[in-house]
Amino acid sequence: MAPVITPVIDLNADLGEGFGRWTLTDDEALLSVVTSANVACGFHAGDPSIMRRVCELAAGRGVRIGAQVSYRDLAGFGRRAMDVPPRELADEVAYQIGALEVFARAAGSAVSYVKPHGALYNRTVYDAGQAGAVVAGVLLAAGPGGLPVLGLPGSLLLAAAGEAGLPAVPEAFADRAYTAVGTLVPRGEPGAVLNDADAVVARAVGMAAEGVVTAADGTAVPVGARSLCLHGDTPGAADLALRVREALGAAGVRVEAFA
Amino acid sequence: MAPVITPVIDLNADLGEGFGRWTLTDDEALLSVVTSANVACGFHAGDPSIMRRVCELAAGRGVRIGAQVSYRDLAGFGRRAMDVPPRELADEVAYQIGALEVFARAAGSAVSYVKPHGALYNRTVYDAGQAGAVVAGVLLAAGPGGLPVLGLPGSLLLAAAGEAGLPAVPEAFADRAYTAVGTLVPRGEPGAVLNDADAVVARAVGMAAEGVVTAADGTAVPVGARSLCLHGDTPGAADLALRVREALGAAGVRVEAFA
Amino acid sequence: MAPVITPVIDLNADLGEGFGRWTLTDDEALLSVVTSANVACGFHAGDPSIMRRVCELAAGRGVRIGAQVSYRDLAGFGRRAMDVPPRELADEVAYQIGALEVFARAAGSAVSYVKPHGALYNRTVYDAGQAGAVVAGVLLAAGPGGLPVLGLPGSLLLAAAGEAGLPAVPEAFADRAYTAVGTLVPRGEPGAVLNDADAVVARAVGMAAEGVVTAADGTAVPVGARSLCLHGDTPGAADLALRVREALGAAGVRVEAFA
Amino acid sequence: MAPVITPVIDLNADLGEGFGRWTLTDDEALLSVVTSANVACGFHAGDPSIMRRVCELAAGRGVRIGAQVSYRDLAGFGRRAMDVPPRELADEVAYQIGALEVFARAAGSAVSYVKPHGALYNRTVYDAGQAGAVVAGVLLAAGPGGLPVLGLPGSLLLAAAGEAGLPAVPEAFADRAYTAVGTLVPRGEPGAVLNDADAVVARAVGMAAEGVVTAADGTAVPVGARSLCLHGDTPGAADLALRVREALGAAGVRVEAFA
Repeated sequence: MAPVITPVIDLNADLGEGFGRWTLTDDEALLSVVTSANVACGFHAGDPSIMRRVCELAAGRGVRIGAQVSYRDLAGFGRRAMDVPPRELADEVAYQIGALEVFARAAGSAVSYVKPHGALYNRTVYDAGQAGAVVAGVLLAAGPGGLPVLGLPGSLLLAAAGEAGLPAVPEAFADRAYTAVGTLVPRGEPGAVLNDADAVVARAVGMAAEGVVTAADGTAVPVGARSLCLHGDTPGAADLALRVREALGAAGVRVEAFA
Repeated sequence: MAPVITPVIDLNADLGEGFGRWTLTDDEALLSVVTSANVACGFHAGDPSIMRRVCELAAGRGVRIGAQVSYRDLAGFGRRAMDVPPRELADEVAYQIGALEVFARAAGSAVSYVKPHGALYNRTVYDAGQAGAVVAGVLLAAGPGGLPVLGLPGSLLLAAAGEAGLPAVPEAFADRAYTAVGTLVPRGEPGAVLNDADAVVARAVGMAAEGVVTAADGTAVPVGARSLCLHGDTPGAADLALRVREALGAAGVRVEAFA
Repeated sequence: MAPVITPVIDLNADLGEGFGRWTLTDDEALLSVVTSANVACGFHAGDPSIMRRVCELAAGRGVRIGAQVSYRDLAGFGRRAMDVPPRELADEVAYQIGALEVFARAAGSAVSYVKPHGALYNRTVYDAGQAGAVVAGVLLAAGPGGLPVLGLPGSLLLAAAGEAGLPAVPEAFADRAYTAVGTLVPRGEPGAVLNDADAVVARAVGMAAEGVVTAADGTAVPVGARSLCLHGDTPGAADLALRVREALGAAGVRVEAFA
Repeated sequence: MAPVITPVIDLNADLGEGFGRWTLTDDEALLSVVTSANVACGFHAGDPSIMRRVCELAAGRGVRIGAQVSYRDLAGFGRRAMDVPPRELADEVAYQIGALEVFARAAGSAVSYVKPHGALYNRTVYDAGQAGAVVAGVLLAAGPGGLPVLGLPGSLLLAAAGEAGLPAVPEAFADRAYTAVGTLVPRGEPGAVLNDADAVVARAVGMAAEGVVTAADGTAVPVGARSLCLHGDTPGAADLALRVREALGAAGVRVEAFA
C-alpha cells in the first residue's frame, strides 16, 4: 500500500509595516497564524524599534524571520518602481538584511530568507537586472551560503536565485485571480482580487492540498507553491488568515515553515 | 637596565560621510594614514554603496572598521541634539551597527568598535540616559561579548561602557584646545580649534609620546588617550593627517589600532 | 438691561497626520466638527497628496486652514525635541507654510494661522530661541502682515508672536488636567489626561461658556482660551469631538473660527 | 534697410544643490554669470536654508528664480526614474513650488518658471503621463496664469505646457553632442559630453548667435533654444560658464532672462 503523503505548506505575511507613530498590520494576531514573517527593514516601512519587537514576537512563537527588502521609498510605501542601478540596489538590499539580522539574532533567531516588497517584487518578476541585484545583495549580506529567496513562480528573481545556488521558494496568493497559464491577473483588472472570504479559504485549501487553482476562465491550473502569502493590511485580515490556517488543518494540510 | 617602552597610538578619522551624490571626506587618502575608520552608517551620512566601498578600502589596507553611529538626521548631519527615548535610541544604534557589519564582513573584516557621531557624541558625554542607550545598542547588536566604545575621556559614555564590561577607549584631539582640567575648550570660544598645522602636529606627538597636552593656560595636562582623532572634512585634512603620522613615526611612536 | 454676550469658541484639531500608505486621523469626520484645521505639512506627517485633500475638504466645509509646523522628524512624529539652530528652524517653518499655502490657495482658501506641533509646541513654551524662530519663520513666509499664532497661554511662543505684532491665539485642552496656576499637568503624571468622555465634554463647556476650569486640586482656574484643541488620533476621537460641539451648542456657546 | 536684430539668449544653471552639510555647486560664482537660477526645492537636493540663501543672492543680482522640481529621492539625487502616479506627482511638484515661493518672495522676487530635474526631466521628454503631471502641478501651484516651463525642444513636457497655455521655453546644451535630427546623443555613448572648454564656448556662441549646432555627424542642425543650460557641478564649471558668457557678449549676443 502506498504511503499517504501529507501535504505541507508555509504561510507568510508582511509584518512590521508601520513607521514611528503609524501602524498598519496587526502583528500580534498575524504572528499567531503564519509560519514565516516578512519583516519590513526600514526602506518602505519598519523602524528599528518595530523591527526589534516583531523579531522578539516571531522568535517567541517559533515563526521564521525573513527580510522584506524594498526600494528606498517611505513616501510611496515601496510601491513605486525605481530605476535603481543594480550595484546600488544590491548594496541597499544588503544593508536592509544586515540591519534586520541584528534584531533577529538578539531575539535568539536569525534572518532565514529574503522576499522583495511591492514594486521591487513586481519588477524582479521580469527585469533581469533588478532580479540579479536582489540576489547579489543576498549574497553580499549572507555570504556564499546565502539565504532562500521567496517569490513568484516563474519570476526572473527565482531564476536568478536558482542560478546563484540559493533556494528559490515559490509562493501563491489565495486572494488573487489566476490566468489559464498560471500567472496573476493584474491588479486593476476586474476580479483580480478576491474579496469573498469563503472563496479565499477554499482556494487556499485547494492550492495547498492539491496544488491546483481554478483560473479566471474556469480551467484548473497547477500551482507549485511551497508558501501561501496572506495579506495583513486590510480590515479583517488577521481573522481571514486564521480561518485559512484552520481550514488547512481540517483538510489535512500540515502548516510549517519551508525547509 | 630598564626596557624601553615604545609608545603606541591609534589614529581614527570619520570616513564615508557623503550621501548619494555628495562627498565630504577624501576617504582614500585618509585610509592611507589612519588605523581606525569611523564609518558613517546612513543616519547622518553614508549610504549603502559608500559604506561598502569604504569597508573594501579599509579592509584592503588593514584599517580597522568602526561604526560611527548617529541620531537620525541627514538634514542636520547628526549635529542637532535630539531627545530620542533611550529604548528607541538603542534600537537605532543597533540597526546602524548591523547594517555596517554586512559590508565589513563582505570585505573580509568586521565591525570592531563603535563611536557616536556629532550631537550624540557630545550628549553622551554628560547625559546618562543617552550614554546608556548607546551601550545598550552595542550590546543588542554585538551580543554579550560586545564591542569596544571609543569616546571622550571622562565621559558618561565610557563610564557606561566600562560598567557593561565593554572596553572603553579614550581618545584625544590634536587640533582642539584643552582646559587645565583636561576637558575640551568648547567650540565657539576663541582658540577652541587650532588652525596651525605645525602646532597640531606637535601636539599630536606630545599626546602620543608623553601623554601630555599643554592646556590653554599653559599648564601641562595628562591625556590618557589610546587613540587620536584626526578630522577629515576640512581642506588639507588628509595632508595634515599624513604629517601627523610621519611625525609620530619620527618621534618613535608606533601607530597601530588599539588592542 | 445689559446685553447678553454670547460666548464664542473656536475648535481646532490636528489633521492630515498620515504619510503615504499610513493614516492616523479620521479627517472627514473631524472636519465636520472643527472650525480650524491644523494641517500637517510634511515634516512630522502629511504628504503633498494628503495636504491637498485635507485642504479641499476643509475649504469645502468652511473650515479654516492652519499650518501645523514641526521639526523635521518623520521617524519620531515630531515628538522628539531637536536643537535646531534658530535660523535653520525659521527657514524650515517658512518652507512648510509655503508648501501648504499652495494647496490651501488651490482649494480656494488660504493658510490663515500657524500652530507648532509636538516637541516644537512644547519647547516653544519655555525656549525663547525656538519660540522666536517660529515667529521669524511665520514672518518670512507671510510677510509683514504675518499670520496668527495658536499656542499655549503664557508660552514664550505667544509672547514672541505678540511682540512681533502677530495675533496670539491662546488655546485650552478639555482632556488635560490643569494645575492651580493654570498650567497643564505634565503627561506622565497620574491623571494628566482625562479619559472619561463625559468629563471632557463638561470641561469643554465650562471652559468655553465660563472661561473656567477645575484644577487637579479642585480650585477653579480661569482659562483665557479663544480655541479648544480636540485630539483626533485616539479611538473614538471623532465621536467625542462631535459630542463636545453639540454640548457647546446646547450650552449657548457659538462655535466659530477665531477672528 | 532692414533693422539688425540682436540675438538674445538666457543662461540657466542648477543651483542650491547641496543639502545640510553638503554642497555641490559654487552658487555665488554661477549667480554672477547666469540669468536664470534653477533652485533645488528639497526633493533631490536643497534644504530650506540653502533655498533662502540662493534666493537672496539671486534676487540681489537680478537673476530670475525658477523651481527645479524633482522626484522625492535624496539618496539618488533625483536621478532614478520613479513610477510616481501622476496625481501624486502633480501634488509633489506643487509642494516644491510653494515652498520655494516663500523664499523667493521674502527676497523680493518670485518663482518665475519651473524646470524638472534629472530623471523627471528625462522622463517627461517622452512620458505623457509624467509630463502632464508636471504641468498639472504647475497649474495647481501657480493658478490659471501658470508659469513658464523650461525643457527640451520637442519634449512632451513642452507640448503639454503649450496645450495648457503655459509658455514653453526650449533650452539647449552647449556641452552635449547632438544627433542629425537635433536630439541629444544619450549619455553613455562615446562623445556624448564635450569636455573641451573651447569647443563648448564655440558651440554656445553658434547656438545663440546663429541658432545652429554641428551634429555628431557633421551636419548643421537648427536649435530653437531661448535658453542655454550651463552645468555647475563639475570642477571648473563656474569658470567655463563665465567664459561662455563673455564669448556671447563678444559675439554680439545679448544675455538676458527669457521674457
